[in-house]
Amino acid sequence: MPADVQEPVQEGTKGVVLLSGGLDSTTVLAIARARGFSCHALSFDYGQRHRTELDAARRVAAALGAASHVVTRIDLRAFGGSALTSDAIDVPKDRSAWDVSHAIPVTYVPARNTIFLSFALALAEVLGSTDIFIGVNALDYSGYPDCRPEFVAAFERLANLATKAGVEGSSRFAVHAPLIAMTKGEIVREGLALGVDFALTVSCYDHRPEGACGHCDSCHLRLEGFAEAGSADPVPYRGGTP
Amino acid sequence: MPADVQEPVQEGTKGVVLLSGGLDSTTVLAIARARGFSCHALSFDYGQRHRTELDAARRVAAALGAASHVVTRIDLRAFGGSALTSDAIDVPKDRSAWDVSHAIPVTYVPARNTIFLSFALALAEVLGSTDIFIGVNALDYSGYPDCRPEFVAAFERLANLATKAGVEGSSRFAVHAPLIAMTKGEIVREGLALGVDFALTVSCYDHRPEGACGHCDSCHLRLEGFAEAGSADPVPYRGGTP
Repeated sequence: MPADVQEPVQEGTKGVVLLSGGLDSTTVLAIARARGFSCHALSFDYGQRHRTELDAARRVAAALGAASHVVTRIDLRAFGGSALTSDAIDVPKDRSAWDVSHAIPVTYVPARNTIFLSFALALAEVLGSTDIFIGVNALDYSGYPDCRPEFVAAFERLANLATKAGVEGSSRFAVHAPLIAMTKGEIVREGLALGVDFALTVSCYDHRPEGACGHCDSCHLRLEGFAEAGSADPVPYRGGTP
Repeated sequence: MPADVQEPVQEGTKGVVLLSGGLDSTTVLAIARARGFSCHALSFDYGQRHRTELDAARRVAAALGAASHVVTRIDLRAFGGSALTSDAIDVPKDRSAWDVSHAIPVTYVPARNTIFLSFALALAEVLGSTDIFIGVNALDYSGYPDCRPEFVAAFERLANLATKAGVEGSSRFAVHAPLIAMTKGEIVREGLALGVDFALTVSCYDHRPEGACGHCDSCHLRLEGFAEAGSADPVPYRGGTP
C-alpha cells in the first residue's frame, strides 16, 4: 500500500475527487475520506454510452459522504476517436479483441484524463483546494498513456504553473493517485477494508438494469480483482456471475 | 517576431488552433495558415457572457480558410469563480478597477487555458495532428498565470506523456504560442501584414450589436494595440472610437 494512503490530514481539508462511479474512483473517494479530506466529487457527463455510470457516481458520492458532487457536461463526441463515445466504433465484447496485441485499446478516449484533471484543477482553484485525487492505475491499464506515474507527475507540475496559487506561491497542488501501483485485487481489498459497498458501483461497458455483461474488458478486470481479493462481487451479472 | 512564425511546414500539415474570435487568436490562425498548416479551429461555448464571441469565431474560421471548426460546449459556470462566467461577480467596467494593484484580475477563469489545451490535445490526437496553436501573450496579460511561457512548455511536456503518439514515440507534440513575446501593437501589425480583417473579430467584454464598449480592459488593450501599430480599429465603438 502506498505511503500516500496512510497520511492523515487536518480534518476538513478540501480535496477534489474525480469520481466515475466505478470500482477504482469509489475506492479513491473512500481513501481520501479516511485521510480526513472533505471531498468534493467531480463527475463528467461526456456522452458515455452507459449513463448508469453517472447514477452510480451520485449514489457513491452520497453514500461515502462527499461534501459536494458536481456533474459537468463536456462533449467529446464531437471529436470522435473512441469506442466509448463514438457510435462508429464497436466496443469489444470480449477482451481478446485487443489484449493479444498489447496495443492501446479502442476504448481509449483521447486526452481524457488530461481533460478530467483540468476540470478538477479549475474546481480545486475555485474551492481553495490544492489536493486532487484520481483513480488511475498503471498495472491493469498499461495500455493507457494517461494512467502512468510520469503523466500524473507532469500534470502536478503543470497545475503549479497554471494557477493563481502557483504564481503567488501560496500553496502547492498535489495530484494524488493512490491506486497507481496497486493490483485490482489490492484495490478491492482496500475498498472493503474502508467499508465501501461495491454494489453501488458500475464498471461494465454495457451495464443494463439486469446487471453487468461479464464479458467486456472492464468486467474481466473487475472479476479478476474480486477473485484476487478472495471476495465475491456484489454486483449482479446478466446470466449469473461468470 | 519569434522565429516560430517564419518556419513553413509541408502544405496541408494539420494543426489545431484555439480560436476565440478575438484579435489574438485570429492572428494566430492567420500565422498558422501562412506557415502552411491546414487549420482545424476549436472554440468553446463555455457560458461566456458575450456569445457574440462565438459568432466572431465562426466568421473568422470561414474567412481565414480553416479546414474545420469545432465548437464544443463546456460548463464552467457550475464552478463559479470568474466574472466572465459567473453572474455573481461584476466585470470591471473600467480597467482601473484592478490594474492599480497588479493583482490577478477577476476576469481570470480558473484553469481555463489548461482546459482549452486539453480539448485541443484530444482533437489533435483524433485528427492525427501534433501541432497546437494558442494565442496567449505574456506581456499584456501578465496577471494570468496560464499565459506564461513556462506554462506552455509544461503543457507541451504533458501532451507528450498523455497520448498514444507520445507513448509510441511516433511523433512529438508542439504547443505553438507565436504571440507570447509580442506587444499588442506587434500582434496588430502581424495580423494586418497577413491580410486579417480585424472587423470580423470581437474583443470587448460587453460587446453589443451597436459595437464595443471602449472602456473595459479588453477594449483598452485592443485600442492601445491599434494605436501602437499606427492603425485604426475597424470595429465600431458605441459612442464612437474613444
